[in-house]
Amino acid sequence: MTKHNRISSEPTLGNPSRRHLLTGSAVALAAGGLAGLSRTTFAGEVEPAAKAVAGKPLPAYVAWKDPASMIVHTSSTLETKRSAFGTSVITPAEQLYIRNNLPAPDASIIADRDAWEVRIEGVAKPSTLSLKQLKGIGLETTAMVLQCSGNGRGLFPTKASGTAWAVGAAGCVVWSGVPVRDLVAALGGVTDGMVYMTGSGGEKIPEGLDPKSVMVERSVPLKAMGDALLAWEMNGAPIPLAHGGPLRLIVPGYTGVNNIKYIKRLAFTLEQTDAAIQKTGYRLSPPGQKGDPSQPSVWEMAAKSWINSPAPEAGVVAAGQTLIKGVAFGGVNAVKGVEVSIDGGESWQAAKFVGPDLGRYAWRQFVLSVKLAPGSYTIASRVTDVLGNQQAERSVENTGGYNNASWRDHALKITVA
Amino acid sequence: MTKHNRISSEPTLGNPSRRHLLTGSAVALAAGGLAGLSRTTFAGEVEPAAKAVAGKPLPAYVAWKDPASMIVHTSSTLETKRSAFGTSVITPAEQLYIRNNLPAPDASIIADRDAWEVRIEGVAKPSTLSLKQLKGIGLETTAMVLQCSGNGRGLFPTKASGTAWAVGAAGCVVWSGVPVRDLVAALGGVTDGMVYMTGSGGEKIPEGLDPKSVMVERSVPLKAMGDALLAWEMNGAPIPLAHGGPLRLIVPGYTGVNNIKYIKRLAFTLEQTDAAIQKTGYRLSPPGQKGDPSQPSVWEMAAKSWINSPAPEAGVVAAGQTLIKGVAFGGVNAVKGVEVSIDGGESWQAAKFVGPDLGRYAWRQFVLSVKLAPGSYTIASRVTDVLGNQQAERSVENTGGYNNASWRDHALKITVA
Repeated sequence: MTKHNRISSEPTLGNPSRRHLLTGSAVALAAGGLAGLSRTTFAGEVEPAAKAVAGKPLPAYVAWKDPASMIVHTSSTLETKRSAFGTSVITPAEQLYIRNNLPAPDASIIADRDAWEVRIEGVAKPSTLSLKQLKGIGLETTAMVLQCSGNGRGLFPTKASGTAWAVGAAGCVVWSGVPVRDLVAALGGVTDGMVYMTGSGGEKIPEGLDPKSVMVERSVPLKAMGDALLAWEMNGAPIPLAHGGPLRLIVPGYTGVNNIKYIKRLAFTLEQTDAAIQKTGYRLSPPGQKGDPSQPSVWEMAAKSWINSPAPEAGVVAAGQTLIKGVAFGGVNAVKGVEVSIDGGESWQAAKFVGPDLGRYAWRQFVLSVKLAPGSYTIASRVTDVLGNQQAERSVENTGGYNNASWRDHALKITVA
Repeated sequence: MTKHNRISSEPTLGNPSRRHLLTGSAVALAAGGLAGLSRTTFAGEVEPAAKAVAGKPLPAYVAWKDPASMIVHTSSTLETKRSAFGTSVITPAEQLYIRNNLPAPDASIIADRDAWEVRIEGVAKPSTLSLKQLKGIGLETTAMVLQCSGNGRGLFPTKASGTAWAVGAAGCVVWSGVPVRDLVAALGGVTDGMVYMTGSGGEKIPEGLDPKSVMVERSVPLKAMGDALLAWEMNGAPIPLAHGGPLRLIVPGYTGVNNIKYIKRLAFTLEQTDAAIQKTGYRLSPPGQKGDPSQPSVWEMAAKSWINSPAPEAGVVAAGQTLIKGVAFGGVNAVKGVEVSIDGGESWQAAKFVGPDLGRYAWRQFVLSVKLAPGSYTIASRVTDVLGNQQAERSVENTGGYNNASWRDHALKITVA
């Protein structure tokens, strides 16, 4: 066992006093690549080496992810493979995508989770509360699609800058924490006239940079407070550091960036923050134009669905009865139904939802059994929410490649033989 | 890095050709104990050594479990700590209890999951089907409380033989697979007159033993077929070997032993199997008497609830407003309500369910906010199902210590200061 490992170059792995033999060695191997090696995955199985090392190795701070489930774009952008999405509604932490605007803070912030403090402003009684105190105020558990604003960017007809996500920058996750509305009530209510809920992340700002230019601070409309949580638990366990633990603002129905990790300040404000990530970033800018505050901010998600199986990457599909499976969600609304087309959108058949309904912000699994003769097919899905909003055929292209919910862009070409 | 590790003595870890550097070393350390070491948990955090090594180390075949969440009774009996149960409804695989009647088969059975075969008998067209074929027949996803028949055994007033589980031999898990009713329909239906559904596990029978004396083969009433699955997925990932992958019979509402791991044969039968685990095992025998077929078999679960927080093991509770949290389920029926008592059952208050309702077989989280003055309290919970069945004050004591759903036995004594 060598003492020379790469952990010392990984600033996000935290407290040197808690780095020891097994952790250091395992993480170092993960960070250094596993070429030619097998490894034990989160599910406890021994994966053949070939499967485990396809693509880039997992970054050290998320070495606990299942390598067979992930596409590593960069150290801060990891996508879930389409083939890794199961049919159990929820997405396990080990398969969930990663998108960080700044490196995660030092792991020392999760050494004593209950000691984490958040400042609440724009209420009658502005206060600083510890996580331990928040736990005494109220409890709610919400299942929610967590989706990167840029999920589907790689499917737009015109290439946009940024990670070319297909469908895997999304997952359905269960969060547990205190409802923001209960917290606000305990502090005397929101100050009259406030228009936005503004959350600030606890990431460390790299030295020499103007904080406003890189800080993760986002404003959402005040109405989003209704179902928002300050959450400390994800899928039944304390929120992993890479996903925003010890405390994350959860804004159900809003894209990932609005769900502030390591939240250290929650303020009700008159104006949107002037941090660049809000002012010019995450705007729906006409292609070629830069972002500015006059353009819509990337907030609520649109109704969207896609097919996970069969998929072209799994190869030729055997002719005969086939189950077409996928996921469908309504953004801020519950879903009513989903249709599937096997002829590129010429005709549609109603698919069946399977599994428990986890609420309006969750996705639902769907399945349709079809008989496929040999040939080529373009398969697509289209969801309708309870308000009658139907998933769009086309999404509006924009400089950032945000909010692609186009059913046509998400259609898959498969071969049946 | 030494080549001498304990993996070679672990028959359940499988194929030597797929044992390599990282796996071997990590597993060996896990199997050999982690005294004085920290380790990276499934959630990717570095756990202090003291927390990770409390109690016995994790057995090698479940080295991927979160050590901070588990109580290791023996290599085949691992319990979830009460403090590890979150409030997100589902129980992550890394926290889920383990109870194996026989060692898990060799991991080679999950090298090609789709190739696993199951024999279906007692139907018009008896057939052997591969997992790949099953996946084409139908799909259902069911959230379910998986609970060992002996969960709560350690809380009975009279000590029964077997693992002294408190509340942690249970979890709420999402399964995905083919409905048995769809499978049976595809095979022409159940043969007339059959009374039981009998599942046989694929565990290897130790040499020199009468197979009937140790094999895992259980019969349940035919009606249980209605919601049963042959499942290949748990919580969104292929079922881990330790939990019965690649294929497990799921009988919602029935205790753990009836959910046959590594299922290799599913038969509709006139009689219950004469395997010892059915004939004399898992019977509700009067205390001191041996099991025999005249006694009730351990099948359906009873309505049950318990409190996870505050718990005596977490120490003295601070006086003031406190959230009492727990889980409640109805066995084969959905739950209607749950009450909490802070005076040992003298008086009860209705608690509030929180989080999504995952269906009749799932548990629900509940919470009640109470103001506690300094003193001693006996806190208890009592669930009522939709048919009006109320959780019993006392469960019938029996030789095996099965089916303890007594609210009084599950009450907790806490100190408030």
